[in-house]
Order: sequence, then structure tokens, then C-alpha cells
Amino acid sequence: MELSALKTEASAFFGQLQDKITKKVESYEPTARFLSDKWDRDGGGGGDTRVLEGGDIFEKAGVNTSLVFGELDPKFADSLPGDGLSFWASGISLIFHPRNPHIPTVHANFRMIQRGSAAWFGGGADLTPYYPVHGDCVHFHRTLKNACDKHDPAYYSEFKSWCDRYFFLPHRNEARGIGGIFFDRLTESDEHSKEARFAFVQDAGEAFLDAYFPIVDRRVNDASGERERAFQLLRRGRYVEFNLLWDRGTQFGLKTKGRTESILVSMPPKVAWEYDFTPEPGSPEAAIYDYLSPRDWASL
Amino acid sequence: MELSALKTEASAFFGQLQDKITKKVESYEPTARFLSDKWDRDGGGGGDTRVLEGGDIFEKAGVNTSLVFGELDPKFADSLPGDGLSFWASGISLIFHPRNPHIPTVHANFRMIQRGSAAWFGGGADLTPYYPVHGDCVHFHRTLKNACDKHDPAYYSEFKSWCDRYFFLPHRNEARGIGGIFFDRLTESDEHSKEARFAFVQDAGEAFLDAYFPIVDRRVNDASGERERAFQLLRRGRYVEFNLLWDRGTQFGLKTKGRTESILVSMPPKVAWEYDFTPEPGSPEAAIYDYLSPRDWASL
Repeated sequence: MELSALKTEASAFFGQLQDKITKKVESYEPTARFLSDKWDRDGGGGGDTRVLEGGDIFEKAGVNTSLVFGELDPKFADSLPGDGLSFWASGISLIFHPRNPHIPTVHANFRMIQRGSAAWFGGGADLTPYYPVHGDCVHFHRTLKNACDKHDPAYYSEFKSWCDRYFFLPHRNEARGIGGIFFDRLTESDEHSKEARFAFVQDAGEAFLDAYFPIVDRRVNDASGERERAFQLLRRGRYVEFNLLWDRGTQFGLKTKGRTESILVSMPPKVAWEYDFTPEPGSPEAAIYDYLSPRDWASL
Repeated sequence: MELSALKTEASAFFGQLQDKITKKVESYEPTARFLSDKWDRDGGGGGDTRVLEGGDIFEKAGVNTSLVFGELDPKFADSLPGDGLSFWASGISLIFHPRNPHIPTVHANFRMIQRGSAAWFGGGADLTPYYPVHGDCVHFHRTLKNACDKHDPAYYSEFKSWCDRYFFLPHRNEARGIGGIFFDRLTESDEHSKEARFAFVQDAGEAFLDAYFPIVDRRVNDASGERERAFQLLRRGRYVEFNLLWDRGTQFGLKTKGRTESILVSMPPKVAWEYDFTPEPGSPEAAIYDYLSPRDWASL
């Protein structure tokens, strides 16, 4: 396939995935609906930031797509594959902050990027529970592993480790959550054509729905009160710390005049910090700390 | 004065200022008291992190002192005055998050640092109102200016501009608050002995109390409700964004294995984010945006 045709297909796929995911989220909500905020980028392209706030199940959900192109900053271009300064990028990124502390927060993104003669895919999905349930973690990882295994038996273990390394808070010496998969710079190779890379990204995107929403279904009626809410708000503080201190995408976006509101749609709706909060050993709140070191979830 | 004697005096001053400020805060609180968390640093020194949480007036107040010494990372040492790798540093830093949205958040810090044959002072104080009152902003700046003017007629305008440049959020194109003063690397010079630099820092530290607490007194009985609280939580989000994305002290501390809980005592107790929040033009919430570009407060 011509690269230009693949770019068109990839961009269309990200748009269809956005439609499918936002419909799925809305199916849980009696009244809350996504707002669609379409924007243009100075220099080329634009995006569609969709945000649902104040839902019964999803306290906040952001699902962004964008298709941007133009000229790279020469300093930044050096860090990328390919040649020249002209680039093209299209992708989807999402984050859901459920209201019920028993439902995990989730993040995913998928993208295609071209610089000169090089083109590649990146993306991933990762889960951040507050009150983790072993079977949910296994389900999330196995579903993503199945999607990976269809394309390359080496994908899952590589992308799972990459995810564990990426979503880590050095200043807390703890993982953001229980991980998932993370991959980048999947260029055409001897083993994988660019069409095969795209087919994998499509399967990973679809697998995200199967990995996450069944967990919502299992947890949505779990009872919680003020205690669980307070703990959720504190743990959301870690999410903010990761995104603003360590997430390279967020930092890059905000420091290169990206669209601030679209980038920070990832921020939780409500957050709390408390000095040196440490749960009672053995309490339900202490359970998460056991989960914040990498485990081989798909084999458990 | 011998440098060693000056260091002893400076460190003692920071400790006395901590006592004085924490007593002043507690004088507003019927029951809430500071917890004092003393800690040791691997490699030399330690600190005293004092935190008051859940107060009637001060929802959270953190007042840290530390005295640390040891060996600098060679990469970091290059960015500092002086010679060699051995360093000594002592200081106080504080941040108050009042409960009433009519009382501004405030931050201040004062420090002395030595590297080899060089020693210098740094510090400052800045105010972050939610519902700004013109006279309060003028009072805050004039009080700091008076302390500056006693030592050098050039200090205030230089340190005020430095503060405006430092406490700025490029990704929002807005200031953190209405500024104050910020200074660093005040070494001995032809015009100012190291004793004179220290005398200025002492006066600035004392001036902080006179600059801030009268504003608390004026605002403490101002009525507020859910609307003002919601706006306060959103504006606190900007504070978090500044501290985690742009504050060099926070970033440096967290990325060089500083004491995380002492550094992040600056985080507000409760925070909110809302997509693309924009106050109604002319509403009380819109007023702050007029204040977030530098003004010559002390002359108004």
C-alpha cells in the first residue's frame, strides 16, 4: 500500500475508534454526553477533543483525536527516526476517571507518525486500580496479550516491560498502576510490513474495549462510601504527579505550545493530597501497594 | 564575620522564623496544630517538616526547614557559583492553603547556600489570590518593598521582576498569582557584604509576616459558599500545574532523590480540574484574570 493511503486509513481508523469508544462510554450514562470540541492547529491540522464530565459512572472521560502536520523543530527532529523536518501525525488518546473507586482509571493511545521517508506506529493501554481485584488485572493483561500474540509472539512481553518502565514514578518508587502494554517506533521491518504494524494497532485498539469495559461491568455495583472516595482522591494525586512530572507526552505537548486543554483533559476531576498518607497495614487501602511492582499478570 | 559563624547564625534564624510563623498560624486555629516531622538525609544533614492539616482557617500549611551538606553531583555543580563539590545549604520554605477562598494562598522561602569559597542567599515571597482585592495586593507588595528599600533602592524592582518571570505558567500564558519578590545568588559584592545580605534576608523573612497575615485578618470573615469553593479548587489546579511542570526547585528536588513528602507538602489539600473552564465575563471569578499580568503594585 502507498504510504499516503495507509495514512488515510490509519487516520480514519482512529476516528472510528473514537466514535465507538465514546458511544460505549455514553451507553453507561443515563444523561451525561460527550462535548465535541473541534480545534485547528496553527501550522497545520487540528483535532477533536471529546469530553464527558459529571457522569454517573464516568466522572470524567476524555477521548481526543488529532491529525497534525507541518515542520518539526530541528532540535526535536534529531530525536526521531526519518529525515527532514516535515512531519505528519494522527492518533487517538483517552483517559477515563470513573466515579466509583472500585472501577479502575484507564488510559490508552494509538498513533501513526511520519517523518520524511520513515513512518511508524506507537501506543498502548494501561490500568490504574484503587482497590485492585486480582482477576480484573489478569483479564486486562490477557486480553491485551491475545491481541499481541496474533501478530508476534514477542510483542506482549516486550510491550508489557516497556509499559512497566514508562509508567513509573521514581520519586515514589512505585508504578502508576498495574501496567498493560506500551510500544513506540514500530516501523516497517524484515518481519513486519507497515500494513502488518497497522493491523496490530487496529487489533490493540479493539482489544482495549474488551480489556476494560468488562471490568467496569464487574465493579459498577460495588458499594463504596466516604472512606473509599477519600482514598481514590489521594491516589489520583499520584496520577497527576506522574502526568505532570514524568509523562514525556504531556511535558512535550505543554512545553511546545500544544493545545493545553486537550492535553490536560487527562487531569482527574477532583484530587487530594495529604501529608505522608500511609494506609494501615492489612487494610483494603494497603492492598494496592502490593500491585505497584511489576508482575507477570497474563500468566497468573 | 567568619563564614562558619554566619552559617550558624543563618541556620538559627531560619529555625526561629519557623517557630514564629508556625506559632502565628496556630494562633488562628482553635484546635489544629502543626505536626513536626524531623528527618535525616542520607549523605548529611536533615530537616524539620511541619504540617498543619484540616485547620479552620488554614486547610493546609507546610513550613519546612532543612540544613543539608555533603557532595554535589558534578553535573549540577557546574550550574552553581563557587568551586569544588562540597556544599552546605540551610533554609526555610512555606506554603499556606487557606480554606476561605477569599484568603490568598501564599508561598515564601529563604535560604543560604555555600559551595567551596562561595556563599550566597536566595528566597522570596509571592501571593496567589482567588478573589483578589486591590488593596491587599498593594499591601503585600509595599510591605516587601519597604523591607527591600532599607537595604538597596534597586532591590525591589529587580526582585519583583524576577518573581514575575519565575512564577509564570507558559502553557497557560498567565502568572501564578500577583507575584512578590524572588532573589537568588546574593553573594558578597563591592556594595553588599555577606553580613548585609544576611541582614536583608532577615528583614525579608520578618516582612513576610507583616505582608501576609494582615490580609488574612481582613478576609477571614468574608462569606463564601459552594461557588467560591469550586472556583478555588480549579485555581488550585493551576498551582499544581506550576509546581510540578515548571518550578525548578520542585523538579530538582524530586528528580534528585530529595525527600518527596517534604517537597510535596506544597500540594493543595483538595484540587479540581474542569475542561476549558472559563468564567463569565464580568463575574467575580473573572476578576483574577486581570491580575495575572504583572503590575507595578507598590506604586498603585
